Amino acid sequence: MIIIGERINGMFKVVKEAIQNRDKTAVQDLAKRQLAEGADMLDINVGTASANPVEAMRWLVETVREVTDAPLAIDNPNYETMKAGLEACKGRKMINSTTGQIEKLDIFLPLAREHNASVVALCIDESGVPVDVDGRVMVAMNILAKAMEYDVPIDELYIDPIILPVKAEQRGPGIVLESIKQFAMLADPAPHLVIGLSNLSQGAIDRKLINRTFLTMAIGVGLDAAIVDPLDTELMDAMITAELLMNRTIYSDSFLTAYRQR
Amino acid sequence: MIIIGERINGMFKVVKEAIQNRDKTAVQDLAKRQLAEGADMLDINVGTASANPVEAMRWLVETVREVTDAPLAIDNPNYETMKAGLEACKGRKMINSTTGQIEKLDIFLPLAREHNASVVALCIDESGVPVDVDGRVMVAMNILAKAMEYDVPIDELYIDPIILPVKAEQRGPGIVLESIKQFAMLADPAPHLVIGLSNLSQGAIDRKLINRTFLTMAIGVGLDAAIVDPLDTELMDAMITAELLMNRTIYSDSFLTAYRQR
Repeated sequence: MIIIGERINGMFKVVKEAIQNRDKTAVQDLAKRQLAEGADMLDINVGTASANPVEAMRWLVETVREVTDAPLAIDNPNYETMKAGLEACKGRKMINSTTGQIEKLDIFLPLAREHNASVVALCIDESGVPVDVDGRVMVAMNILAKAMEYDVPIDELYIDPIILPVKAEQRGPGIVLESIKQFAMLADPAPHLVIGLSNLSQGAIDRKLINRTFLTMAIGVGLDAAIVDPLDTELMDAMITAELLMNRTIYSDSFLTAYRQR
Repeated sequence: MIIIGERINGMFKVVKEAIQNRDKTAVQDLAKRQLAEGADMLDINVGTASANPVEAMRWLVETVREVTDAPLAIDNPNYETMKAGLEACKGRKMINSTTGQIEKLDIFLPLAREHNASVVALCIDESGVPVDVDGRVMVAMNILAKAMEYDVPIDELYIDPIILPVKAEQRGPGIVLESIKQFAMLADPAPHLVIGLSNLSQGAIDRKLINRTFLTMAIGVGLDAAIVDPLDTELMDAMITAELLMNRTIYSDSFLTAYRQR
C-alpha cells in the first residue's frame, strides 16, 4: 500500500501560517511525523496560503526536501505552479493531479515524462464526474490510452475514481468499489489505483470511522494507494491490518509496530 | 446485514455455568444485550457444558425463547442434539450447521425443510477445507444443487466459505474474499453468504482489530451475514458504517444510533 500523507496543505491553518511566515520547522515537523507513522510519499499543497503560489510551492518543496528523500506529490491544478514544484523537487516526485480531460492529459502527461514523475489522473472528463461505473471505466480507458501514447510507464500511473461525500451521494462509495474492481482488470499489470479518502466524509459526523471503514473495503477490492492522514492512528492500524489480511505483509504478533518500522 | 450473535455458547465460562446451574437470568440477559446491540439472530450452542447435550440444548432454546421472537441458530454438529433444539424452538430457527459432505447434506437439508429452518452449509467436503478458491466454489455448487434437490429456498440457505486463523494460514482471508465474490455470482438471487468471524483471529494479538477490519472488507465484496460478537461495539460500528457505505442504510448524522434502534 502506498500511503500519501495529506497534511502538508495550505488549507490547514498551521501550514498556511508556516507558509506565510516561512517557518521551516513547522513544515518539516509535519513531514517527519507523517513519515514516522508510515507515509510513503508526501502531498505538497500550498492551498490559498499565498498570493504567489509559484513562489510558495518552490519554498514548500525545498523545505520538505531538506528532511526527506521520499517522493513528493506536487498538488496543484495550475500548470505554472505544478511546473515550479516539479522543477524545485530533486529526486522522486508525482503530479497530483490531472483530470481525464483530453486537453489536460495532453499537457500533464508530457510534463510527467519530462520530469520523470508519476502522475495521478482523476476520473473526470469534459462532462464532470461520471455518474456510474461504466462512465468511470470509459474515462479510465482514455487515461490509459493517453498514458501509453505519451510513454508514461504503467507503474507511474495512478488512476483515481473520485470519491464524493457519502452524505451528498450515498451511491458513491459502492460505485467507487465496483470501479476499482474493474480498473484492476483494464491492464496487466494494472495501473496504481488511488483515492483521496478524506473527501468521502466531508460534512459528516464520525469522519474517521467512515474514512477507515471505506479504506479497508477499497483495499479488499484492489486499491493500492491512498491520500490520507497518516497521523490518524486508527486509520493506519486499519490499513496495516487490511494489508496483513491481503497477505501483503507477514503476520507477527507485533505486525502493527513492524509495519511502521519498515 | 444479518448479524448472528455468538455469545450464547457453552464454551464461554459464564454460559457454561448458567447451563449447569439452570440459571435463566444469565442466559436471558446475554440474549437481550446482544439484541439491543443489533443482533438479528442468536446462536445457541451448548458446547461442552453438559453430559446431556440434548437436554441442555432444549433448556437453552426454551430459556432464550422466553425473552425473544428472534430466529435462533441451533449450533451443534450432532444430529440428535440438533433435532432436539429444532423441536424445542418455537418460531423462526436456523440449522448451524451442516458441512458440504453429501451424506451430511442428505440428512440436514431435509431436516431444514421439515422444520422450516434456514441452514448454514460450510464449504467442507470429504477432503476437508479446500485449499483454494476453485475448490470452495465447487463445494458451494454442490451445496446449491443439493438445496434445490431438497426444495430448500435460496433465501434460507447460508453458505460459509470457512475462514481459517490468519496466524496459521495467511492466504486464507484473500481466498475467502475471492470466494465470496464468486459465490455471489453462482445464483440469482444469490444465497446468503456468511462467515464465523472470530475464528479468523484465533491465537492472534489485536483480535478485535483483525475481526472488524476483515468484516468490512468482506461486506465490500458481498457478505451479507456473519456470526460475531455484537457486544463488541467497535465491530458493530464498523459493520454499520460498511452497510452505510454499501448504501443499504440511509445516511443521517446519527446513523450508528439509528441502526441500533431499528
